[in-house]
Amino acid sequence: MFRPQIKVLDCTIRDGGLINKWQFSDDIVRKVFLALSEAGVDYMEIGYKSSEKYFSRAEHGAWKFCTEDDIKRIVGEADRKIKLSAMADIGRIDSEDIPFKKDSILDMIRVACYAKEIDKAIVLAHECLEKGYEATINLMAVSKILEKDLDEALDDLSKSHVPVVYLVDSYGSLYSEQIHFLIKKYFEALPGKELGIHTHNNQQLAFANTIEAIIAGVNRLDATLYGMGRGAGNCPLELLLSFLKNPKFDIRPLIEVIQEIFVPMKAEIEWGYHIPYLITGVLNEHPRSAMKIMGQNTLPNLRQFYEELKDGTQLD
Amino acid sequence: MFRPQIKVLDCTIRDGGLINKWQFSDDIVRKVFLALSEAGVDYMEIGYKSSEKYFSRAEHGAWKFCTEDDIKRIVGEADRKIKLSAMADIGRIDSEDIPFKKDSILDMIRVACYAKEIDKAIVLAHECLEKGYEATINLMAVSKILEKDLDEALDDLSKSHVPVVYLVDSYGSLYSEQIHFLIKKYFEALPGKELGIHTHNNQQLAFANTIEAIIAGVNRLDATLYGMGRGAGNCPLELLLSFLKNPKFDIRPLIEVIQEIFVPMKAEIEWGYHIPYLITGVLNEHPRSAMKIMGQNTLPNLRQFYEELKDGTQLD
Repeated sequence: MFRPQIKVLDCTIRDGGLINKWQFSDDIVRKVFLALSEAGVDYMEIGYKSSEKYFSRAEHGAWKFCTEDDIKRIVGEADRKIKLSAMADIGRIDSEDIPFKKDSILDMIRVACYAKEIDKAIVLAHECLEKGYEATINLMAVSKILEKDLDEALDDLSKSHVPVVYLVDSYGSLYSEQIHFLIKKYFEALPGKELGIHTHNNQQLAFANTIEAIIAGVNRLDATLYGMGRGAGNCPLELLLSFLKNPKFDIRPLIEVIQEIFVPMKAEIEWGYHIPYLITGVLNEHPRSAMKIMGQNTLPNLRQFYEELKDGTQLD
Repeated sequence: MFRPQIKVLDCTIRDGGLINKWQFSDDIVRKVFLALSEAGVDYMEIGYKSSEKYFSRAEHGAWKFCTEDDIKRIVGEADRKIKLSAMADIGRIDSEDIPFKKDSILDMIRVACYAKEIDKAIVLAHECLEKGYEATINLMAVSKILEKDLDEALDDLSKSHVPVVYLVDSYGSLYSEQIHFLIKKYFEALPGKELGIHTHNNQQLAFANTIEAIIAGVNRLDATLYGMGRGAGNCPLELLLSFLKNPKFDIRPLIEVIQEIFVPMKAEIEWGYHIPYLITGVLNEHPRSAMKIMGQNTLPNLRQFYEELKDGTQLD
């Protein structure tokens, strides 16, 4: 038995781009698109929708911007079953950067925000819905806010037209019992809405927490090829599709593109489980300090890194 | 709150030795011993107890044999809080290779067996108990046997004096719901006994499944430093101790020994999550075919490896 409502979204290029500034060749993005299509994945999130007023193409690759020309160059004009998504960050995009759906190849826009930005996020998501897109809100970093503030954000969301809300474990710090607690809270606060889950792998729990979310009733699942993503990375798509029983999924094209592209890429750019990411995950901290030391030629003393970060946290 | 009954066993040298034939220098084993002691780990499983009639010291390091001299060379004669354990495999050890506890520095012997060897395992475990050791039985590869055969093995165990029985996910193929199902079955079949869990990381679920076992009431937990172990490795000790609330545990000495020894060692010997291990895990197969191709200079076509192994499985 499987739940036909389950929809899988691959965000390899979007989240993976956070570690290489979206410097993926067109050939790589095309191979990812073809593999995901053949594997039966429901959505490909191809990048961020950002304004070129705020970021430069000299520094960032095409998938920080996702113009219509960028995307068409990859996917062509032919019919396709897989839907295309882009993520929009509050404050990094303006209204005029989002065309009407009839003029766009994108199917969905996901608005990422922190709890304190929830009103801005709802306005942007409503605008996307009105322009004809599917829209979602991905509420980030909820492991670090007061429960009262989370409840308020959920209350605002419950009054919105946004049909899908994601639980995002930005710091990779949540355990399965916390996933169950939060999903129950989200379902109770958001009657009639669909829930999604986006996890990080700091504690090797990204896939496991995604399974727990499925058990708790979540139908929108984020994953990336070989777990590529910021810091410790994400829920690996190949594991997720192996777990799901839906006959439409096929992991063989994923194995192929991982062997060709992502195994060699991981030897160059080190995402995945490493002690610095474990430390920020365990301490429920943003991975930026871990990413900084992972970028150095020689790691500093990690016991000291742990102790200093822990002291810093305790003095907050 | 924490469960004071929880006992953590580190089997880095024993299970890790399966990938380097126990070629650990005395210096490394001593540093592991000191770090585990400082971290508050309850047991260190220092290797296998095997007969030199069946294996040669020319090929295998000391920790395939664990003589009293081998162990004393590392841990000395001073008082210590951490207990020492060795694993015995059915058919690889004879009665005379196990001295009386009063003549041994070991505290515990864990007998590993397949379901069909359960009677031999119980006889050996009883002998260890009679000689004065703590003893356990670790029932391997239960994801691949008929439920009827598992029930029979559990019934035999319920009539034995063996106080601790381990659920072992040898192939790294179990999901959380299966862990809960099996633990419930073990508890019902084994009234009065304690349960343990030993997981493998083929699907990045070793730590997550250990957490689920804790939630289900399991108190004996296996883990290894940086997840070192055969194939995809084991539940990482540093993650497990971070999760447990018991104030006696301290992950700082683990971070230190991992940085000094296991990060460089992992760059040489590749345990951990790799697509070949994912494939054997998903197909519920012994990792030997994956270990074989991981040992080659160039990986074969992995899509084909998956398809052939799947066909082989289906034709069984």
